[in-house]
Amino acid sequence: MSHIDRDRLVGLRREFHRHPEPAWREFWTTARIVEELEAIGVDELYVGRDALDGDSRMAVPEDAELADWLERARDAGVDEDTLAAMDGGYTGCVAVVDCGPGPTVGLRVDIDGLPRAESTDDEHLPAKEGFRSETGAMHACGHDGHATIGLGVVEAIRDSEFSGTLKVFFQPAEEVIGGGKAMAASEHIDDVDYLYALHLGLDHPTGEVVAGIDGFLAVEHLDVDFHGAPGHAGAKPEEGRNAMQAMAAAVQNMYGISRHSDGATRVNAGVVEGGTASNIIPEDVRAQVEVRGETTELKDYMSDRVRDVVAGAARMHDCEFDVELGGQAPSATSDQALVDFVMDAADGADGVTSIVERDALGGSEDATFLMQSVQDRGGLACYVGVGTDHPGGHHTATFDVDEDSLPVGVDVLVGAIERVAERRP
Amino acid sequence: MSHIDRDRLVGLRREFHRHPEPAWREFWTTARIVEELEAIGVDELYVGRDALDGDSRMAVPEDAELADWLERARDAGVDEDTLAAMDGGYTGCVAVVDCGPGPTVGLRVDIDGLPRAESTDDEHLPAKEGFRSETGAMHACGHDGHATIGLGVVEAIRDSEFSGTLKVFFQPAEEVIGGGKAMAASEHIDDVDYLYALHLGLDHPTGEVVAGIDGFLAVEHLDVDFHGAPGHAGAKPEEGRNAMQAMAAAVQNMYGISRHSDGATRVNAGVVEGGTASNIIPEDVRAQVEVRGETTELKDYMSDRVRDVVAGAARMHDCEFDVELGGQAPSATSDQALVDFVMDAADGADGVTSIVERDALGGSEDATFLMQSVQDRGGLACYVGVGTDHPGGHHTATFDVDEDSLPVGVDVLVGAIERVAERRP
Amino acid sequence: MSHIDRDRLVGLRREFHRHPEPAWREFWTTARIVEELEAIGVDELYVGRDALDGDSRMAVPEDAELADWLERARDAGVDEDTLAAMDGGYTGCVAVVDCGPGPTVGLRVDIDGLPRAESTDDEHLPAKEGFRSETGAMHACGHDGHATIGLGVVEAIRDSEFSGTLKVFFQPAEEVIGGGKAMAASEHIDDVDYLYALHLGLDHPTGEVVAGIDGFLAVEHLDVDFHGAPGHAGAKPEEGRNAMQAMAAAVQNMYGISRHSDGATRVNAGVVEGGTASNIIPEDVRAQVEVRGETTELKDYMSDRVRDVVAGAARMHDCEFDVELGGQAPSATSDQALVDFVMDAADGADGVTSIVERDALGGSEDATFLMQSVQDRGGLACYVGVGTDHPGGHHTATFDVDEDSLPVGVDVLVGAIERVAERRP
Amino acid sequence: MSHIDRDRLVGLRREFHRHPEPAWREFWTTARIVEELEAIGVDELYVGRDALDGDSRMAVPEDAELADWLERARDAGVDEDTLAAMDGGYTGCVAVVDCGPGPTVGLRVDIDGLPRAESTDDEHLPAKEGFRSETGAMHACGHDGHATIGLGVVEAIRDSEFSGTLKVFFQPAEEVIGGGKAMAASEHIDDVDYLYALHLGLDHPTGEVVAGIDGFLAVEHLDVDFHGAPGHAGAKPEEGRNAMQAMAAAVQNMYGISRHSDGATRVNAGVVEGGTASNIIPEDVRAQVEVRGETTELKDYMSDRVRDVVAGAARMHDCEFDVELGGQAPSATSDQALVDFVMDAADGADGVTSIVERDALGGSEDATFLMQSVQDRGGLACYVGVGTDHPGGHHTATFDVDEDSLPVGVDVLVGAIERVAERRP
Repeated sequence: MSHIDRDRLVGLRREFHRHPEPAWREFWTTARIVEELEAIGVDELYVGRDALDGDSRMAVPEDAELADWLERARDAGVDEDTLAAMDGGYTGCVAVVDCGPGPTVGLRVDIDGLPRAESTDDEHLPAKEGFRSETGAMHACGHDGHATIGLGVVEAIRDSEFSGTLKVFFQPAEEVIGGGKAMAASEHIDDVDYLYALHLGLDHPTGEVVAGIDGFLAVEHLDVDFHGAPGHAGAKPEEGRNAMQAMAAAVQNMYGISRHSDGATRVNAGVVEGGTASNIIPEDVRAQVEVRGETTELKDYMSDRVRDVVAGAARMHDCEFDVELGGQAPSATSDQALVDFVMDAADGADGVTSIVERDALGGSEDATFLMQSVQDRGGLACYVGVGTDHPGGHHTATFDVDEDSLPVGVDVLVGAIERVAERRP
Repeated sequence: MSHIDRDRLVGLRREFHRHPEPAWREFWTTARIVEELEAIGVDELYVGRDALDGDSRMAVPEDAELADWLERARDAGVDEDTLAAMDGGYTGCVAVVDCGPGPTVGLRVDIDGLPRAESTDDEHLPAKEGFRSETGAMHACGHDGHATIGLGVVEAIRDSEFSGTLKVFFQPAEEVIGGGKAMAASEHIDDVDYLYALHLGLDHPTGEVVAGIDGFLAVEHLDVDFHGAPGHAGAKPEEGRNAMQAMAAAVQNMYGISRHSDGATRVNAGVVEGGTASNIIPEDVRAQVEVRGETTELKDYMSDRVRDVVAGAARMHDCEFDVELGGQAPSATSDQALVDFVMDAADGADGVTSIVERDALGGSEDATFLMQSVQDRGGLACYVGVGTDHPGGHHTATFDVDEDSLPVGVDVLVGAIERVAERRP
Repeated sequence: MSHIDRDRLVGLRREFHRHPEPAWREFWTTARIVEELEAIGVDELYVGRDALDGDSRMAVPEDAELADWLERARDAGVDEDTLAAMDGGYTGCVAVVDCGPGPTVGLRVDIDGLPRAESTDDEHLPAKEGFRSETGAMHACGHDGHATIGLGVVEAIRDSEFSGTLKVFFQPAEEVIGGGKAMAASEHIDDVDYLYALHLGLDHPTGEVVAGIDGFLAVEHLDVDFHGAPGHAGAKPEEGRNAMQAMAAAVQNMYGISRHSDGATRVNAGVVEGGTASNIIPEDVRAQVEVRGETTELKDYMSDRVRDVVAGAARMHDCEFDVELGGQAPSATSDQALVDFVMDAADGADGVTSIVERDALGGSEDATFLMQSVQDRGGLACYVGVGTDHPGGHHTATFDVDEDSLPVGVDVLVGAIERVAERRP
Repeated sequence: MSHIDRDRLVGLRREFHRHPEPAWREFWTTARIVEELEAIGVDELYVGRDALDGDSRMAVPEDAELADWLERARDAGVDEDTLAAMDGGYTGCVAVVDCGPGPTVGLRVDIDGLPRAESTDDEHLPAKEGFRSETGAMHACGHDGHATIGLGVVEAIRDSEFSGTLKVFFQPAEEVIGGGKAMAASEHIDDVDYLYALHLGLDHPTGEVVAGIDGFLAVEHLDVDFHGAPGHAGAKPEEGRNAMQAMAAAVQNMYGISRHSDGATRVNAGVVEGGTASNIIPEDVRAQVEVRGETTELKDYMSDRVRDVVAGAARMHDCEFDVELGGQAPSATSDQALVDFVMDAADGADGVTSIVERDALGGSEDATFLMQSVQDRGGLACYVGVGTDHPGGHHTATFDVDEDSLPVGVDVLVGAIERVAERRP
């Protein structure tokens, strides 16, 4: 499609890539998107507090952490009004483009980065080309590309044959599965008849389009704390109530929760930290745990069993414990009518060399909250995979997106949106 | 003893208490001691690099960490010359006071704080009286009092009947058992004929003096690292090599190392941290472990067994591992002749209400390196306990010293030093 | 079908139920089957050594154990010739019935019991009706019914319209997945063109027939031994090398082997035993472990990881270890042509109230060796489920088969065999 | 001493060695002792029920096990009257020898074997000389020698200069610390003024006598049961509540109970067994656990913590649990006056080449119940070590006593008993 400017998309993506901000800290990112949207011109624009239901946010970081990233955004030149709309961790925005009479079609793109370091290896393109992360965080899951494609679709839609209303949800905090629910609980989703969501990569090469992704694992994040008592490890070890032993027992046994014959389950104690010094019996230890299931029931089974394990581990080592629910997301399925539109749009599109009708994600996503919301009201939803050659796996230090996939994403999505309006199912 | 000014000791102690600096980061503390020593007037003064054998330092933090605390000391007004002598983590000092002909008597006091938060409870005197820690670290083991008593002895010795040379070792990094060896490996210990070391508290009340402390556990710090591989916890969990499971297995099993019939042993995984995010199979996990034994052989037994456990845990979960030796210290015994002098000095001293001939420490100390060095050359050494009512246990957030014990410490030690010169064994 | 005598089937089944014999110990059971086959009259009959490839047997018990059960069979009146053919644990038999020209159709039924106690509860029919196990073992998986149906089919086939050769494989040692390979490696399978296998129950009620069962998990049994050193637990605990700690670490961590995104996996440490006395550090500990996978690759993944875990646990606790392969079985699929015959035969058969085309087993079976052998030579195979109301779950103390399902099994299988000959695919 | 017949002692010891019977099963052994005592001639003889307080017995085996060993004793020719006195596991006897006016001096010897196999190695003297165990159990702790020495002392005492009453307690069930309390709770101990107990070996060579043994660890045996639910490991693993995982977690964590600064502690999960089959989630698992402490308080600390660990492990894996107290024994100290008599008796005795005043046992003993009982009433007690070269450690398959130590034991004990009467403290 001639109206898609690859260079502009690449430029935007690299800019986002240099400024990754983790969940609920996307102050600069949101502001930058807003800036672009205003330049493009949209009919309505909701930012921060106005874009989501604040009380439905999950896994929001501590105030100090939020303040720190807000300050960084301020230092990077974000204006005070935009910051004010987001202060307290209300990031993301919703853009509405009125393209005439017709259905309301939503597009959801996520915009957050991951709290991990990026590779400095010369083979790593962002390092080589000088757009490596400057924040310590990293866009290791392609959300820099997603935000870019979201802007690209807004830009391209007016030149397309689409008639109807386009709403693009620039969603924060997907990586902590904390933002999807907040956007799904806002009024912005209420009039969306059809929803597309998008992901780059997922082990599909550049040129391949997966029309409908399913197999979303329901997921739940749990913050587990053990609280014991300190003691001098040499002089009075018995005075300690050892929170580290409790945690080690819990970790050992939560991975050992029985597989379930009803389907796939997952558990991970992804982050553990605690203790004071090598000569003090560890008093406080924390873990970030997540469980998943092929169905919500299976996820709940895992969650219940993790809670048993944690309670038992605390009992063993005479510690107190706390299990706090972080983010969560349900499962979801892509509707065939929209899958068909995506296949049709992909067929013959520039750069598309292979079309896969359906594939399973295997992981989790909180786009499912928005999909579920639309589907519950009788609408249709579809999660689209846009292949991209990525040298490292998702979430690793050398992940990168092949920028050739950016125009493909814009093109296919615009086509799929057009088809909804034309052939409304 | 009329020449001991309690108020001055209390003032110094509170000043130190407000500025706790952990091991090898005692830039401000050392400088403040140097300032006082220069004000008092000593005959020789060795600071930082000149006070210890740099290569024998153990458990030195990363450069960035050292630089951070150096910068804080600079901000707090420490002059550049003193900082230069300490740059790179060469803290502590040795003061020499020439009091005429006679033996060389050493006194070792340690000056470092602990990397832990201090209580904000109103019942906690430093909180109530406004001299709570301002650095985030805490003097939770009384080293603020030790440094104060060291200065008090220097000040009082000239007015005493002592004839000989007094050397006071203001030793850094005791809490990581990292500084004792470095001072013991310096030339300053070579001519010390008699050595006293000192500790406040140890569960003895104000007014009680323990003339000779024994039962030092030999100790060894081990930094344990597991390195696996990341993997998406939902989509590709099997691609991970889970360093957290390895660590949990190691922690579980190292506490389970068999007791030994030859005597007391200890093990503690005091600090554990690792992992990236809840949805990534943890790739890197680290622990700070320590082992102790009633004898060096028992400590070695524990160390060997911990290494077996770590190697096995890595094998289990297909991870690489690394065990790096941090600080260590041997055991030691107080010589009876000096114990007798301390008892004699304590007998009738102001504020002393109870004298205990000997008690066991139960913990570890790297004063043992200096004691061993003196004893190996035919000298005598003695580790003295000066009781102090302490509301919380050592290393806990509410630990505090009863300031009445400060003049007791100065008085008894000066008396014990005098007696060495008079009745040289 | 009028020629099926329910009472006779019930009588046979109850007789088998009273004499359960675990894997490779089916001396009495085999002899009793042989007796019946001879009474019915078959064309060829291969017993014990002649029925299977002895070297391919897996999970054969110790000689003493075999001798003990052989002796019991002798005491129960089995004649010496038949015992001689089975001596050493060569149980099972193959019966051949020549019904004229046509294909060779195999039927495989398994005949072994489980080494577990049977319920004495009055609600438990075998207890109430007086045919509870007399051997200490138990038919807790319905193989008493399978043997009975096998005999019933032999008896009914001559009166049927089947033209061809029927071979019934009365297979031993299914429960330890040890006998299937031995029968599949014998020459008796070589000319089998079509194979049916059979299972009662599987959570399907009486009257329901599952025409084709799939979803066999590939399985592997592993005997894990840890060998350490004893030590007096009070006086010299450190002299022990603790095989129990090694086993506990291994058990904890083998259940914690990561789930796999390619499909279902299983692991179980089903039996553990070891140690000498409470005051001796345990020297020898053994476990019977099994792993499964939706595919052979997944089973191998689990097996490899269990071996890592065991090796690591041994390393941790300075023990030697041994992992010995017990039985194993691959996965398999039912061929549609035979599934169709079963559906057709079940349609309208007496007592059949519900037909399910396909269902997944979820468990494992070594009938897969025979199925694979037939399929590898271009033949077809099908595993049929015959529903039966069972009060307790398979392998539990109150499992029982509803005897109404016995004639259903005979009827449907004879019908399915007839259809092969008639409409040979 | 000319009246000690080495050959006779060796003959008795070998006879006992061939018939080892574990705790509460010493039917043959007691009967054989009774036979000898009757032949020697004693003034009073209490057997079985009459020798102890039946209700105070601990760790008594199941009835079936007792009946089995009783039957073996019957088969070996023990007469019915003696069996009747012991039926139900009331083993052991008390012999009284009146030697004129004077104090009552007790001697306690234990008579039980261990439930372990004996070496068949040709280097192992009992194997080589043909008096290896014939029962499957083993005298691997020298109690065969203790019983022999007890008889030798009875035999020799009349020829000695002892004036007073000698009571010899042939105590059963020491290895399970189950019999000492029962004898201490009987009336036989009530008039004992002085008590000696005895042990061979303990790593002291032949010719060495330890006059007073201390350092008995208080001990407690705990039978731990986990009860979960079975489930088919392939088809329905989630239906299981895994008692093996609970046990593995418990074992891992009980060894990890913190060391105590007050003194030595011990813990051992000496025997674990459970589960049904490799394909069933384990439903029932049992362990024989013991804890010890240098003091009763330390033993209680360990016992309390084990109970926490077990409760937590059950909670983790949704199992029920039960912790039942088996045997237990307190600590004790040898009185100096008796220690002095032993040293004096040993000085110059035939075959004594070395005298050690005191040594620590390191292990546990339920002779402490009898010692405590005598001491509580103002009497004195002393536990004597008689060295013996033993090729293997206590409780191992190659343990053996050097028979030269048998006359030494008789001689020294008779001398020590004489001295009590002569110089009554």
